[in-house]
Amino acid sequence: MEYESELKERAQQVNKLLEKFAPAGDIPPLLKEAMEYSLYAGGKRIRPVLLMETVKICKGPLNLAEPLAAALEMIHTYSLIHDDLPAMDNDTLRRGRPTNHVVYGEAMAILAGDGLLNCAFQTMTENIPYNDSRYLKGYLLAMNEITRAAGHNGMIAGQVMDMLSEGKEPDKDTLTYIHNHKTGALLTAPVKAGALLSLCDENTYKSLTDYAKALGLAFQLADDILDIKGDKGKLGKSTGKDEQSGKLTYPLVYGMDKTYEKIKQLNKEAACAIEQLNIEKEFLINTADFICSRDY
Amino acid sequence: MEYESELKERAQQVNKLLEKFAPAGDIPPLLKEAMEYSLYAGGKRIRPVLLMETVKICKGPLNLAEPLAAALEMIHTYSLIHDDLPAMDNDTLRRGRPTNHVVYGEAMAILAGDGLLNCAFQTMTENIPYNDSRYLKGYLLAMNEITRAAGHNGMIAGQVMDMLSEGKEPDKDTLTYIHNHKTGALLTAPVKAGALLSLCDENTYKSLTDYAKALGLAFQLADDILDIKGDKGKLGKSTGKDEQSGKLTYPLVYGMDKTYEKIKQLNKEAACAIEQLNIEKEFLINTADFICSRDY
Repeated sequence: MEYESELKERAQQVNKLLEKFAPAGDIPPLLKEAMEYSLYAGGKRIRPVLLMETVKICKGPLNLAEPLAAALEMIHTYSLIHDDLPAMDNDTLRRGRPTNHVVYGEAMAILAGDGLLNCAFQTMTENIPYNDSRYLKGYLLAMNEITRAAGHNGMIAGQVMDMLSEGKEPDKDTLTYIHNHKTGALLTAPVKAGALLSLCDENTYKSLTDYAKALGLAFQLADDILDIKGDKGKLGKSTGKDEQSGKLTYPLVYGMDKTYEKIKQLNKEAACAIEQLNIEKEFLINTADFICSRDY
Repeated sequence: MEYESELKERAQQVNKLLEKFAPAGDIPPLLKEAMEYSLYAGGKRIRPVLLMETVKICKGPLNLAEPLAAALEMIHTYSLIHDDLPAMDNDTLRRGRPTNHVVYGEAMAILAGDGLLNCAFQTMTENIPYNDSRYLKGYLLAMNEITRAAGHNGMIAGQVMDMLSEGKEPDKDTLTYIHNHKTGALLTAPVKAGALLSLCDENTYKSLTDYAKALGLAFQLADDILDIKGDKGKLGKSTGKDEQSGKLTYPLVYGMDKTYEKIKQLNKEAACAIEQLNIEKEFLINTADFICSRDY
């Protein structure tokens, strides 16, 4: 419970960051409203929290991590808005509220999503530390890592394969591909970007990446279980959608028992990956424990 | 006619650039196909051509201009794919071919658009000249300029206002806002980005920006006229759409005669803006003449 309060407090700090970097300037009020409706809808903020924590324990520049962390959450939010569209998953409930297109209409939801993706890049490019000779290159490499994870080699590739595999014969390789790309890429990116920004050595970078990969997969598996057994009211989103749309999930391919087993194994893998590192590991370990023992 | 051949040749060079920076690596083949279907569909390539020309006449680094030019066309293409969606303009013909969603379905068209926007940023961030102490900052400033022009303070703002003004009472201020943002921002960005990359002095930057602003507005006005009087076969896209959807256009607000007059005036303004500059101006002047005397 102590960890959960800590996570909530950190999510609050992320919310403040999002307000700091929110779409501003000359912008149509309704566009701003639609973008912020989804951006401020809550959520665990796990991606920005992971990035900030990585930079903290690697003793990197926390102020430079802020725009990168905000950008990650903007990218995650845009992907939810577009995923929920009628032409995609056609979802009406998200984070306990009607989805963006239900409130603002499809056209505005498409543009609000586009706006948030663009805003993520704008937030990163407008905060480039031009004169910081120590951290400039790390910042730019981190920016590139986040961009790559979000795109056609990362999250979007996963979304496409997820969509194309609906109703098809279950296939283990495709499932692995979807998991690594759809959720994995944007959950590994915070840790990689944080390590790059902090100019970590290669061994730390690799160990943290392995940790994040295990965490990302566990996160997806827990999500798959929650879609089957979770409580809609508690989750704040529709359940039973995967089966309904014939989505390729871990429980579908391997069964429920093996999914629980795999999550336990991933929990250990995550902890082992960073075991040898001489950094403050407690929050990362607790995060893995939390993800792997979500209420399902 | 000589200028038109020149423009076509430059468009060919842009096509080669696009192939060079096209989505590659680990990418689902159907996503790649959908992205490239629209990216390689032709078009005048006016934005990348303008950027390359600006860098050329300002004696900037042409190799560094290449990823920025490719990114501009990717952003333009994504905006067309999303604009054409059933929830938006619901267009079925573009650049003489069925629109992206007609061929690949709505869900894939949304993702192909997202992919191209993301690919634009990926192209720019993966080609950052880390070790070029002379042009690094110019490159990053140009990248930021392009990002800003595409987003909630630029093109997306214009698209939102364009959509919200449909069927409303004609309003001159709103029309100006739409023009400056929807088309203006992404036509001014190539020239601004080119000047920033080339480390131009402030006067050159300002004059080139004024030129591009006049050009951008003339481009939009010509487009409005073509939607009314143009030939669908020749244009390669549907016509009569503006009136049908009650769009706010210059001819609607000011009438046809004043629109022609305004284009002539903008042609002069564009030429005047760069008159005093001690750079090679011929291609820019010819471009303005070409845009302002399109076959309408």
